[in-house]
Amino acid sequence: MEKYFCFIAFAYFSFFGLNAQIHLNSGIQSKHNLNISSNGRNNSDQSLTDYVDPFIGVENGGNVFPGATLPFGMVKLGPDMCAIDPQNMCYQTNSGYSPLDEKVLGFSHTHVSGTGGGSKYGNVLVMPFTGKLLLDDYSSLRFNEVASPGYFSLVLNRYQIKAELTATQRAGMHRYTFPKSDQSGIFIDAGFFLYSGQQWGENQELVGSEIKVISNTEIQGYNRVRGGWNMGGAYTVYFYARFDQPAEKFATWKGTELKENSNLEVDSGEKTGAVFYYKTSNQQIIQLKVGISFVSIEKAKQNLDQEISDWNFDRVHAEAVKVWNKELSKIEVETPNEDQKKIFYTALYHSMLMPVDRTGENPSWNSSAPYYDDFYAIWDTFRSLNPLLTLIDQKREVDIVNSMIDIYKHEGYMPDARSGNDNGRTQGGSNCDIVITDAFVKGLKGIDYETAYQAMIKNAEISPGGDERKEGRGGIEDYNQLGFVSSKFERAGSRTVEYANCDWAIAQLAKGLGKPADYLKYKKRASNWTGLWRDISFEGATGFIMPRNSDGSWVDNFSPLAVGSWKDFFYESSSWEYSLYVPQDVKSLIDKCGGEAKFISRLDTFFTKNYYNMSNEPGFFAPCLYSYSGRPDKTQEIVRRTLAKNYNSGRAGIPGNDDSGAMSSWYIFHTMGFFPNAGQDVYIFTAPSFKKATLHLESGKQLVITTQSLSEKNNCIQSVKLNGKIWHQSWFRHGDIKDGGSIEFIMGNKPNDWGKSNAPPSMSD
Amino acid sequence: MEKYFCFIAFAYFSFFGLNAQIHLNSGIQSKHNLNISSNGRNNSDQSLTDYVDPFIGVENGGNVFPGATLPFGMVKLGPDMCAIDPQNMCYQTNSGYSPLDEKVLGFSHTHVSGTGGGSKYGNVLVMPFTGKLLLDDYSSLRFNEVASPGYFSLVLNRYQIKAELTATQRAGMHRYTFPKSDQSGIFIDAGFFLYSGQQWGENQELVGSEIKVISNTEIQGYNRVRGGWNMGGAYTVYFYARFDQPAEKFATWKGTELKENSNLEVDSGEKTGAVFYYKTSNQQIIQLKVGISFVSIEKAKQNLDQEISDWNFDRVHAEAVKVWNKELSKIEVETPNEDQKKIFYTALYHSMLMPVDRTGENPSWNSSAPYYDDFYAIWDTFRSLNPLLTLIDQKREVDIVNSMIDIYKHEGYMPDARSGNDNGRTQGGSNCDIVITDAFVKGLKGIDYETAYQAMIKNAEISPGGDERKEGRGGIEDYNQLGFVSSKFERAGSRTVEYANCDWAIAQLAKGLGKPADYLKYKKRASNWTGLWRDISFEGATGFIMPRNSDGSWVDNFSPLAVGSWKDFFYESSSWEYSLYVPQDVKSLIDKCGGEAKFISRLDTFFTKNYYNMSNEPGFFAPCLYSYSGRPDKTQEIVRRTLAKNYNSGRAGIPGNDDSGAMSSWYIFHTMGFFPNAGQDVYIFTAPSFKKATLHLESGKQLVITTQSLSEKNNCIQSVKLNGKIWHQSWFRHGDIKDGGSIEFIMGNKPNDWGKSNAPPSMSD
Repeated sequence: MEKYFCFIAFAYFSFFGLNAQIHLNSGIQSKHNLNISSNGRNNSDQSLTDYVDPFIGVENGGNVFPGATLPFGMVKLGPDMCAIDPQNMCYQTNSGYSPLDEKVLGFSHTHVSGTGGGSKYGNVLVMPFTGKLLLDDYSSLRFNEVASPGYFSLVLNRYQIKAELTATQRAGMHRYTFPKSDQSGIFIDAGFFLYSGQQWGENQELVGSEIKVISNTEIQGYNRVRGGWNMGGAYTVYFYARFDQPAEKFATWKGTELKENSNLEVDSGEKTGAVFYYKTSNQQIIQLKVGISFVSIEKAKQNLDQEISDWNFDRVHAEAVKVWNKELSKIEVETPNEDQKKIFYTALYHSMLMPVDRTGENPSWNSSAPYYDDFYAIWDTFRSLNPLLTLIDQKREVDIVNSMIDIYKHEGYMPDARSGNDNGRTQGGSNCDIVITDAFVKGLKGIDYETAYQAMIKNAEISPGGDERKEGRGGIEDYNQLGFVSSKFERAGSRTVEYANCDWAIAQLAKGLGKPADYLKYKKRASNWTGLWRDISFEGATGFIMPRNSDGSWVDNFSPLAVGSWKDFFYESSSWEYSLYVPQDVKSLIDKCGGEAKFISRLDTFFTKNYYNMSNEPGFFAPCLYSYSGRPDKTQEIVRRTLAKNYNSGRAGIPGNDDSGAMSSWYIFHTMGFFPNAGQDVYIFTAPSFKKATLHLESGKQLVITTQSLSEKNNCIQSVKLNGKIWHQSWFRHGDIKDGGSIEFIMGNKPNDWGKSNAPPSMSD
Repeated sequence: MEKYFCFIAFAYFSFFGLNAQIHLNSGIQSKHNLNISSNGRNNSDQSLTDYVDPFIGVENGGNVFPGATLPFGMVKLGPDMCAIDPQNMCYQTNSGYSPLDEKVLGFSHTHVSGTGGGSKYGNVLVMPFTGKLLLDDYSSLRFNEVASPGYFSLVLNRYQIKAELTATQRAGMHRYTFPKSDQSGIFIDAGFFLYSGQQWGENQELVGSEIKVISNTEIQGYNRVRGGWNMGGAYTVYFYARFDQPAEKFATWKGTELKENSNLEVDSGEKTGAVFYYKTSNQQIIQLKVGISFVSIEKAKQNLDQEISDWNFDRVHAEAVKVWNKELSKIEVETPNEDQKKIFYTALYHSMLMPVDRTGENPSWNSSAPYYDDFYAIWDTFRSLNPLLTLIDQKREVDIVNSMIDIYKHEGYMPDARSGNDNGRTQGGSNCDIVITDAFVKGLKGIDYETAYQAMIKNAEISPGGDERKEGRGGIEDYNQLGFVSSKFERAGSRTVEYANCDWAIAQLAKGLGKPADYLKYKKRASNWTGLWRDISFEGATGFIMPRNSDGSWVDNFSPLAVGSWKDFFYESSSWEYSLYVPQDVKSLIDKCGGEAKFISRLDTFFTKNYYNMSNEPGFFAPCLYSYSGRPDKTQEIVRRTLAKNYNSGRAGIPGNDDSGAMSSWYIFHTMGFFPNAGQDVYIFTAPSFKKATLHLESGKQLVITTQSLSEKNNCIQSVKLNGKIWHQSWFRHGDIKDGGSIEFIMGNKPNDWGKSNAPPSMSD
């Protein structure tokens, strides 16, 4: 049976996204290729942005941001809708956008993409309207939604106003096409922010807001908010807005009181806003552009004037398309399947939304280092998103790493998560450790690794105390004393196994920096996962990570299928999955599981019974484990199966939260045919999906990946040539490709002996 | 011998401040009673402010703020001088003011009073000048310094400009009298902040600044700074300045580049400023007024316009005097000794500078609770300053307590210290616990004690981890497990004994809130000081708090005289002093010391050999210990001796840092004749210094304290009547005086049996 496994299994799944389902709601169309001229898009030649559909992943909880933004852009200008919770109350999703028939509340300038939990941002909301403005009832259904890189538009049913949005790094531009009306208007709500309703208990709270009408074409102010998913302190989004035509009259409000001809609402902790009134002819366009800043109103104005000096919406949009095309062209794929290309470039686009480059916009300290925010969370991104950037955008990865180190220098800890200029929340381990070591082992220059090492040692040695959800390693005192995090701490299971992997990252860096004693110390700790390894059996598998008391006794009756959250033993995963999470030492894991045969059988059970949860990150590396036990064909089969099952070009085309592009970057690696073991300079061959993929490296050199005999059925690698050399093993090192080169796959529908010997490296080798 | 102890000892010390030394530097005069009319002071009747000399305590490291401010005022407008450090570099003291011949750099709007360590604040500096402005060389020597409540002035030698300052809560007013010059000017430095030089490693750092010339009479901007003594995060002081006459021309600068006719410097992390140029005739007055805010520029403008609507400097000054007189009149003292009155009312004035009322000015969260900042530190103030406010300004103490609870609710911990909107540093214990219980046992209403209790339990149970200098109780894991903080933690000695006192505060509140199990738990922990009690002898005293390892072994060769700091076993004190710090259970302390006789002998050694350090707070209660062992006469003698030795009406008239008024409040209590055991509803009679003192309580009732046979020699209480009743014991409860009443002392020069029996209460009673 096994011989044909990879062929047979595939009967159940489609390939190349052919089973993609496009969910179209009444009045809402995902048609980025339509109406190009009317959207002001540059249609002179086919560009990679044409393959990006920002609506992929807006359903199924993907929570991707579909609005207008640049790569890693500070401004993410998009619509915020009124979703209705079970208590019939209005709330906003994490991206602001709701995929169904929810009403539009306006268009705000800051968002995150693909996140879960309590919402963050949604600052500085703009809304056009006609008729009398009712502050408690102005929202509108919409139709004709269009989204593409750097562009978003929809039509507001209630007002028959077409809204179009585009963006630069730090400014947004709005183009509203009005019907004829004596009562047209556009307001800016300085008090608005995304509100998650009662469901999370992680809501943002207003600290204050202020608004000032400077002239009949200018409004400035700010929105100051705290809380949200990462439970962060107050952050302030300052704004400066210019309108392209003078308002007939204006008003401001505080709380719910609208005051005609008032031009100022000073911050008293309440919501404030201002409205400009116009008389519009039919199809009259009114434009405004809004600069934002986390530093000051004047900085927001400067950002605006530096980035958008004219009123040419189409030019701004075309610039955004140009920037995106440049970024997307870092990987060129060849395939006759346009749908597959759409999935790929949308995934690549989604891999370039976060973290956010806010260099020069840090209100917390002054530094020459770059400043990135919205690490949301590194627990999600360290496994494949950061390694992807290292491969295709090294300079940015260096900047990101340097910003993490700078955060440590000024705030005491590198982030595991960070948003709104404040660290928090720590999900699993201090996975920034792995990002650092990943950069080091892959030879990234321009990083102060000694300081980074100090930051890692702090993670490993100093308890964050009561702030254990904010940063550092909660329960580290147990881990360092007992060899495991005991059940008195939350997330003791996931923490223990992740800390062990983080400690291997520390050990590797210690070795690289010439600290042999530290190397041995942390190498030893990197085995601490065994402290929770209990020799009990479920469904033929023996040995599971299980909860343990600080006296060494085991907590009984814990189900290996129990999936937890913040307060539980495992975070967003189960023991079936986390018991396989020993990426630093798969060899020892195989031994613990009873040898290769039992390990393979255990993996078969794991994948066959769907104990593997693709929609959260702890299982990201699991398909590669087969390659450590002589069955790379099964890695290939599972990867192809998982890609086909979980990714498509529809609005639900991402397996749950995109997690800042984590899911998307998983897709990118695997369709290119390899996947990183983060924190090591090792990639595992998986199964390519393209006839040809060309990575344009920063050095100017190329890594060209070609695949012969590529087909849906042929998901077994028959042979590989790396840089022209026959390559028998199922893995390679970063050094083998960092200066470009070639990978040549030949595929077939039955596994042969390729890659079965010479397993990828493990700590205990 | 002992019989005459209190008489003989006094031969060495003067009384009533008669030994006061007034340090007058060439050109600097402390003459607040001179030139009253020329200073614009309302001289219509003698007022209590006339007894306040803000220069008392500017020398001898007192670091009091001598500038213009209101009680607990947000604006503290005063001069900043260029003091010269050993490396010949310019630095600023904690108050900005330097007492000798240092040059004036300008007048900034925010300061603290009486603090040590790295400087904080000094934001928004204004400076007048004549001639060409040289940004790197503009400072000036000064003469004719005058300071009184709400007023400060000096003359700048170099420019022959008289500078006068007054203040409201959130705005400052400047009156500059110029000589004739075609090149007069006034600049605002938005980049300035107090810089401590290399001495502390706790320097403030610039985050950014911005300045904008709005018109030829208006300048606005902000200064954003982080760091300083409490190592806090960034805070921003926004400002809005109006000048009373239009500038001839203006310029701005960024870094060191002065740009004529430029009106804007946008924040790029550099220092910025703006200058207004004038042509002045001889004696021409130019005034400006500056509103500040921690929220926004518009709020700063609103603060200014609400508080100073005209250009009448003298009116603003007179209002300040009125407010101060009202505050100072809460205690009326009668004495023929004008110097003593001066010391007393200056001490009362100094007790009303900090913390700072910033209600409505909190940029970190939105709340209906009051907001106080600059708890600097509660470790200093909980012993006598907070109890003094409870006695004479209960509403304010309730507000202060509520702001502490609100800080806990929004940031996770009550402060031990806080400044610039950020908690930090924790010096000894979590002494906020004691402030809460002090309020509770004294019956303060309008406080959510249940939430406060949760905050206290968090202090007692949850380790602050790596943030142990920021908040909470560092080493609490040791303390709760071992019964003491082991030597692996810094400040293990002071922490252990202070935590024990704090735990008694928790126990008392637990009892009051009906939590008997908690009461017993924390009462038990309140004996944890015994965990470090080592039965070794020095100079006849047996038993000292000594460092101990976590395995229970003792650290040898530790001197009982070693005075430490942050990283040491004791903070700002020695074992001689901290071994006597068991205010919650003096009875057990006496037992541990070998009984009353040995205890008295130990105290004698302690005071005679000057192991008692009045200039730091751990010994604040020490003189009262005699009253627990049948020798209240010695309490009285030591108190009078300490008063006479340490306090006078000179510029060095405070024993070191005033510590936010801690030293001053110690003086107030003792000269009234009693001293609180903070966290208990108990006061110990000490030795009155006034014939009559009347406390005007908020209830409208009065507590009248009279003393017969008062003299320098008569420092032994012969008898006391409390509310008309003969009072044999040396202590009373807050309930005995809270609704007013009377205390009648009769003094003599030899102790009798008064107060010897019925010792004050101890936990172990």
